[in-house]
Amino acid sequence: MDEILDILGQRRKLAFIPFALFDRDAYGAKAQQRFEREGLVVRTVTADDAGLETLDWAEAAFVGGGNTFRLLKTLRDAYLHKKLRQRVSQGMVYMGASAGANIASPTIRTTNDMPIVEPDSLDAIALVPFQINPHYVEPRGHTTHMGETRDQRLAEYLEENSTAVVGIREGGWIRVVGQRATIGGTQAARIFRRDSGPEDRTPGADLSDLLVVGNLP
Amino acid sequence: MDEILDILGQRRKLAFIPFALFDRDAYGAKAQQRFEREGLVVRTVTADDAGLETLDWAEAAFVGGGNTFRLLKTLRDAYLHKKLRQRVSQGMVYMGASAGANIASPTIRTTNDMPIVEPDSLDAIALVPFQINPHYVEPRGHTTHMGETRDQRLAEYLEENSTAVVGIREGGWIRVVGQRATIGGTQAARIFRRDSGPEDRTPGADLSDLLVVGNLP
Repeated sequence: MDEILDILGQRRKLAFIPFALFDRDAYGAKAQQRFEREGLVVRTVTADDAGLETLDWAEAAFVGGGNTFRLLKTLRDAYLHKKLRQRVSQGMVYMGASAGANIASPTIRTTNDMPIVEPDSLDAIALVPFQINPHYVEPRGHTTHMGETRDQRLAEYLEENSTAVVGIREGGWIRVVGQRATIGGTQAARIFRRDSGPEDRTPGADLSDLLVVGNLP
Repeated sequence: MDEILDILGQRRKLAFIPFALFDRDAYGAKAQQRFEREGLVVRTVTADDAGLETLDWAEAAFVGGGNTFRLLKTLRDAYLHKKLRQRVSQGMVYMGASAGANIASPTIRTTNDMPIVEPDSLDAIALVPFQINPHYVEPRGHTTHMGETRDQRLAEYLEENSTAVVGIREGGWIRVVGQRATIGGTQAARIFRRDSGPEDRTPGADLSDLLVVGNLP
């Protein structure tokens, strides 16, 4: 919350986007209550024309976590993904947790979530040119489970795609201001690229090189 | 392998489908070698017209595991999903492991895999009317990881869909012959439905009620 308030600065008008969870009303009410405690003026975005207007009103948007497919489908069906992109280009602050961070990537191809619904496209808002993998965890040791580890899944992603992926561990975040990106929080972020091994960057480290698309291997 | 040979009976002509892995040639060669050791005649399916002909030749198909999105996209792009469905209706045996089992469901909406590529639809081969969740594992105990557990993901699926899901644990399988489905292997399967708690069925138990679509809650 300290980081959120620091990012917001003097801005007070916050739009909360609850579509990643099934019960939007409950999620919106909970977030609204929490953010209002900090003196913010909060409106929950709805998946209709009124929602587009709420984003026009807002100085900042916060997108909550849950299922990334459900979130993206709801945004795309109501054209809210385009409105979000437009508003950010006009200076609106964008903040997202988990699924909400994931959709700031070009696509949701690095989500951990189950594809419980089918968006018309996996293309997301593309506020940054790299992919985010939220809740990144290293593979555990020996197990009898035959399912893929996270690293195997990300390696599969890089077999099919050349865009770099940033794995964000619990307690970590990325803050982007203009052409500058920085790792924040308590945990290192891990960068996965097609032709080199993973690279950890600790909190405070610069990530701006990943904002330059041409620099992506 | 004992179960596979039992299912095959007198059939010897097996088509292996390697599309869930990136290196199809290596996967095909490995599977071919293993199955030929059992006296089978094996051809690896290619993603083209020759692949359609291989399925016409085959008395049985085995679909290997890997990434379910990659598998489904490759099948759909080459119309092999329709050919598989047609050949099964003509009596061809279908066998699948992991992703290969998953696509026997109506959709791949209950896959655990990362959506590294984008099929034109998540609709799969629909050889059975229920969803399969392969590599099912119960939630672990206390953890600091904030990502969803498998049970939470399946609950999210049931928030959006009414089709029942069968979670298959490591070492378990489902065998379907005509209107009869049976749990096999060493582990119980767990059935998830929208309006009731999960139900375990042990190896040997009948699952035929799930083949009757009208019976699905």
